[in-house]
Amino acid sequence: MNRRRLPSEFELIARYLAPLAEGFEGARGLGDDAAVIPPASGFDSVATVDALVEGVHFLGDDPPASIGKKLLRVSLSDLAAMGARPHLYFLTLALSEKTEEAWVADFTSGLAEDQKTYDITLAGGDTVATSGPTTLSLTALGQVPSGKALARSGAGKGDAVYVTGTIGDGALGLAVLNGGCAGLAEAARAHLVGRYRLPEPRTGFGEGLVGLASAAIDVSDGLVADLGHLAEQSGCRATVEAARVPLSEAAEAALGGDRDLLATILAGGDDYELLFTADAAKETQIQSLAGRHGLRVTRIGDTGKGAGVQLLDPQGAPISLGRQGYRHF
Amino acid sequence: MNRRRLPSEFELIARYLAPLAEGFEGARGLGDDAAVIPPASGFDSVATVDALVEGVHFLGDDPPASIGKKLLRVSLSDLAAMGARPHLYFLTLALSEKTEEAWVADFTSGLAEDQKTYDITLAGGDTVATSGPTTLSLTALGQVPSGKALARSGAGKGDAVYVTGTIGDGALGLAVLNGGCAGLAEAARAHLVGRYRLPEPRTGFGEGLVGLASAAIDVSDGLVADLGHLAEQSGCRATVEAARVPLSEAAEAALGGDRDLLATILAGGDDYELLFTADAAKETQIQSLAGRHGLRVTRIGDTGKGAGVQLLDPQGAPISLGRQGYRHF
Repeated sequence: MNRRRLPSEFELIARYLAPLAEGFEGARGLGDDAAVIPPASGFDSVATVDALVEGVHFLGDDPPASIGKKLLRVSLSDLAAMGARPHLYFLTLALSEKTEEAWVADFTSGLAEDQKTYDITLAGGDTVATSGPTTLSLTALGQVPSGKALARSGAGKGDAVYVTGTIGDGALGLAVLNGGCAGLAEAARAHLVGRYRLPEPRTGFGEGLVGLASAAIDVSDGLVADLGHLAEQSGCRATVEAARVPLSEAAEAALGGDRDLLATILAGGDDYELLFTADAAKETQIQSLAGRHGLRVTRIGDTGKGAGVQLLDPQGAPISLGRQGYRHF
Repeated sequence: MNRRRLPSEFELIARYLAPLAEGFEGARGLGDDAAVIPPASGFDSVATVDALVEGVHFLGDDPPASIGKKLLRVSLSDLAAMGARPHLYFLTLALSEKTEEAWVADFTSGLAEDQKTYDITLAGGDTVATSGPTTLSLTALGQVPSGKALARSGAGKGDAVYVTGTIGDGALGLAVLNGGCAGLAEAARAHLVGRYRLPEPRTGFGEGLVGLASAAIDVSDGLVADLGHLAEQSGCRATVEAARVPLSEAAEAALGGDRDLLATILAGGDDYELLFTADAAKETQIQSLAGRHGLRVTRIGDTGKGAGVQLLDPQGAPISLGRQGYRHF
């Protein structure tokens, strides 16, 4: 397994990974078999795992720093959906044979930047070689006040359904990278690609939803599919007025050029916005929280008796989409 | 990404992974974005990550149940080296295109068996598809009394160096699978292959070493390399009498047929035994602990001033090996 392109595993760890763990004493400089994490009294730990595969979740020529950030941010988005504050993460790097040291340097520089942005620290990991595409896996730990973690299962009937930010940009960004949306202006295309490459996990806002939201999930599989998960786990039906779903200017422009993109927007995934339900009486508190985080929060529908997700057009007639979100198999 | 061979990601999770998480309420049936883990007062959490890649760490036609067990046991061995009791684990499956449902069924049945053997439960994970070889990653959490976790760095000068079980079987087992050790009897070959495929992590014994051992590591990279890590982190030199290193009958037979296999035995890795140091005055307590766990523990050398690892022959002359353990790159 000696490869010319990369320094040894130990040198890679010392040069690029150990510096990411400097902020956490329990990582012991990545020199031990495992990390030691003291308990935090009054808090539950929240743990989530995400994997990214080259050619599936990112492209071989994506900027490595963006890949590092996306890997971390996808997990941070899961923590946000549970109402947890980021704490530590563990990293598995299975590096393809064509990986060069510069790739690792840039990848870890992206992680280093995001560690500062989101106040999270590397605590351990494993680095191996693979004959296949580079495969990355990250386990993130967060902290939430004991017993207060948000769940997908808490929505009542008659709750309001909210979403943060704008929906569809990530899926449209991927479409642009694959040669789609050719008629769109360059600035709009760049905005969409940026949103695909660098989601913005709603960590601070998610923490604030503890005690406010009745159920929450992050939009990764697509708005319709993820709302379906929430409705199923909560034993209710969710109704969404499609015209209320918040779109960026770039997504509006794309949709203006091709109405069929509505399915991509509503079911395409990779949004990493928070989708949550709350008692409608909490509207003011929710908008106030959103204001403090400089975040747009939009009420897009309601829950009720029954099951599944119903999309309505402005006249109240049901809309049916061609597909129900991304599936890995 | 629709593939004929496998059910959907959601069906795979419901059928094969959710049952593995039934023993842990905080996993919420794998239905949420993350698992919720209550704090354990008086204990530190210990976390370790290991990855296995098809073609590197296991072979495509290895029995899937053994692969599942090996993945878990490699991490359990890390927990044992820290003195921690197994608690929960998180699993990333990046499945190759040729993976069939029967593989997943058998793989998870192996995990289910080992969950009972080692009292550990699945708490979360991610399942994705890859165009390359199947790549597995596991993050294991254990618990150790606060502040008592074992480390590689605690060895004093003049401590005794011990190892559990026998050394070299794993590396010889891999050699057998690759067509080596052809002159060996069938039973010996089967023993070595079994030790390669199914290491036995020393979890209970490792817990017992808390308060007894001054430093510990598990032998995964090879006895010489791992003792080198321990010596480096502890700032001492380790001297090992090669003839004292405990060998199985099968390894003795292999070595009898080819003296060059000594390098494979001492530097080959994949042993997953515990290598630890302790004040020589604790010999009786250590042997008593070993007896309670039905485990052989052998004193193979000592620590002293200086750096590095020195191997000695029965006449006290230094031995030099051709290689220093497995490297991924």
